[in-house]
Amino acid sequence: MAHAHQKRLARLRELLQGVQASALLVTHLPNVFYLTGFTGDAGALLVEASKATLFTDGRFTIQAREEVRVARMNMVRAPLPVAIGGYLQEQKRQIVCAFEDDRVTVSQFASLRKHSGKAVRWKGARGIVESLRAVKDAHEIQLMRDAAILGSSVMTEVIGLLRPGMTESHVATEIDLRMRRGGASGSSFETIVASGPRTAWPHARPTGKLLGKNELVVLDLGAILRGYSSDLTRTVYLGRAPQEIRRWYAAVVAAQSAARGAIRAGVTTGEVDAAARGTLARAGLGRFFVHSTGHGLGLEVHEGPRLARGQKDVLEAGNVVTVEPGVYVPGRGGIRVEDDVLVLENGSETLTTAARELVEIPV
Amino acid sequence: MAHAHQKRLARLRELLQGVQASALLVTHLPNVFYLTGFTGDAGALLVEASKATLFTDGRFTIQAREEVRVARMNMVRAPLPVAIGGYLQEQKRQIVCAFEDDRVTVSQFASLRKHSGKAVRWKGARGIVESLRAVKDAHEIQLMRDAAILGSSVMTEVIGLLRPGMTESHVATEIDLRMRRGGASGSSFETIVASGPRTAWPHARPTGKLLGKNELVVLDLGAILRGYSSDLTRTVYLGRAPQEIRRWYAAVVAAQSAARGAIRAGVTTGEVDAAARGTLARAGLGRFFVHSTGHGLGLEVHEGPRLARGQKDVLEAGNVVTVEPGVYVPGRGGIRVEDDVLVLENGSETLTTAARELVEIPV
Repeated sequence: MAHAHQKRLARLRELLQGVQASALLVTHLPNVFYLTGFTGDAGALLVEASKATLFTDGRFTIQAREEVRVARMNMVRAPLPVAIGGYLQEQKRQIVCAFEDDRVTVSQFASLRKHSGKAVRWKGARGIVESLRAVKDAHEIQLMRDAAILGSSVMTEVIGLLRPGMTESHVATEIDLRMRRGGASGSSFETIVASGPRTAWPHARPTGKLLGKNELVVLDLGAILRGYSSDLTRTVYLGRAPQEIRRWYAAVVAAQSAARGAIRAGVTTGEVDAAARGTLARAGLGRFFVHSTGHGLGLEVHEGPRLARGQKDVLEAGNVVTVEPGVYVPGRGGIRVEDDVLVLENGSETLTTAARELVEIPV
Repeated sequence: MAHAHQKRLARLRELLQGVQASALLVTHLPNVFYLTGFTGDAGALLVEASKATLFTDGRFTIQAREEVRVARMNMVRAPLPVAIGGYLQEQKRQIVCAFEDDRVTVSQFASLRKHSGKAVRWKGARGIVESLRAVKDAHEIQLMRDAAILGSSVMTEVIGLLRPGMTESHVATEIDLRMRRGGASGSSFETIVASGPRTAWPHARPTGKLLGKNELVVLDLGAILRGYSSDLTRTVYLGRAPQEIRRWYAAVVAAQSAARGAIRAGVTTGEVDAAARGTLARAGLGRFFVHSTGHGLGLEVHEGPRLARGQKDVLEAGNVVTVEPGVYVPGRGGIRVEDDVLVLENGSETLTTAARELVEIPV
């Protein structure tokens, strides 16, 4: 991986010239990992023109020495902003240092400024490393395919287990266990299992509620496999679905299919959102689609690009995004169908493989 | 819980007078949950003298209406800083608004300032809600006891399973599975299973490495049970431990016991740290203890108070802290023993119950 890390650092240095900064302080840990391979829970990376320095504390020094080939180590004893500020001041030269202003807190920045003194001109910047991360290389795409396939097979297995009388929490445990058995280091987010009227909460946490007959069940899960996340949702019905539910379900699947069909390099993320939103609006369900169509996926479960109303960002080959329209009818229930999609030059590849037909579980 | 939430809001308003602010914008989600019961993934709470307002978006409105009794709802369509800034500007009166400057990013704050205009004087503050959270009430203590007992019984069970030839990842999966079966909604942090020389990494992630004969194994786990976290560590030996390992182990247990013995209301956190550090130093192992002695525990796995060198914070009855000294010898291995301890007026109660004697697993 040292070669991939060097390549990423080289591309980052090119981008730094674009923002007229001589250095970038990378504080967001997934960004630090992406650039160096460091998996510790505390640290920051200072990228300068001719070197990179990883600041971390005593808990992570042995680990950092084994994991990181592309940066020199600076073992700090003070809090990171104090130590990094002090390091910059000691350089005794004028430096324009970009920092991730969407990751650094107001108090961390005050401390950085105080301890770096007048030598540093700080320049708020954001999304620089994230813009690199948004375009996956061939190795990353393979890892994401693996994570998507694992998530899909767990989804299919667990749908096969669903019966009235199980609790939502029990179903969530079965999901998490199977992801781990399949090699996942964990879940990308707290697994969602919602049933009955609770399916109208897009982000319901699983509870002790029993799955009932003639209820919707929403399952939203993601596996972290070798660092990369998947994220998929299926909605099933316990019993024979009434006509209205079938109509809602068909509209959601049509919206999802329209959005996936709209994906290719060069299209704006807003156009993809509009494809889903328009389909639901034409089915008279527009007002029940209360969130955006999707988000990027990779080392984090929410990253760029965002597929939302009116967004002008242009998709690039190598982006991986979720496509997850839904309808949520308060007091009644909700339906969401979500897949992970790789953007290609002339279309897309859906990485998740679980079936999208409405599953009606005999009760 | 509405009563507990009202009480917490009332105490918070008292503290606000101390910082001469008429309002506090609470953006850290565990703080929002503590004050209102809201479990959504996006939202912020504005606490004013006579009312509290929860800002959240369409994904969480149904959920917020069901969960929250103590705040009025403001459903936002713009990003939170834009919506909250706009709301404050519309009040058309001068307001001094405190905000969590250790939680709000530089860019969020810039947006808040821009959209609130001149009506608001922003005042960086930190740790206000956290200072309330650090002192657990009787209900919270019971929840933490339950989480600690669950973590302890999983630890004891899994130590009973350890055999050479299992992978670290497999052991981690067994731990996570048992916590979930015991009712946990998840792990407080990524479970640590490290073996052999990797035990010298205080925060090693589990890998495919096989547990070997005549190796140390460090297990560090925590369960989230009804919102509250436990966090405990045990170190065992696969085989008959050599004399040196026994000596290190005995020193760590003695240091841990000394620190737990030092805990009572009125003592500084630095004194507790010194009790552990002094014991290890007297055993000639001081330089191998590369982190602080412990941290507060509750809705988050790392919260206040911090037990570290030289800290002057004074322990209060109702604090719950980890006590987790360790020695880490590069290339050789590490030993850590960690328990969760409730601070009492005249002493302490150790909430975790797993045995602390050195376990030597026959191989």
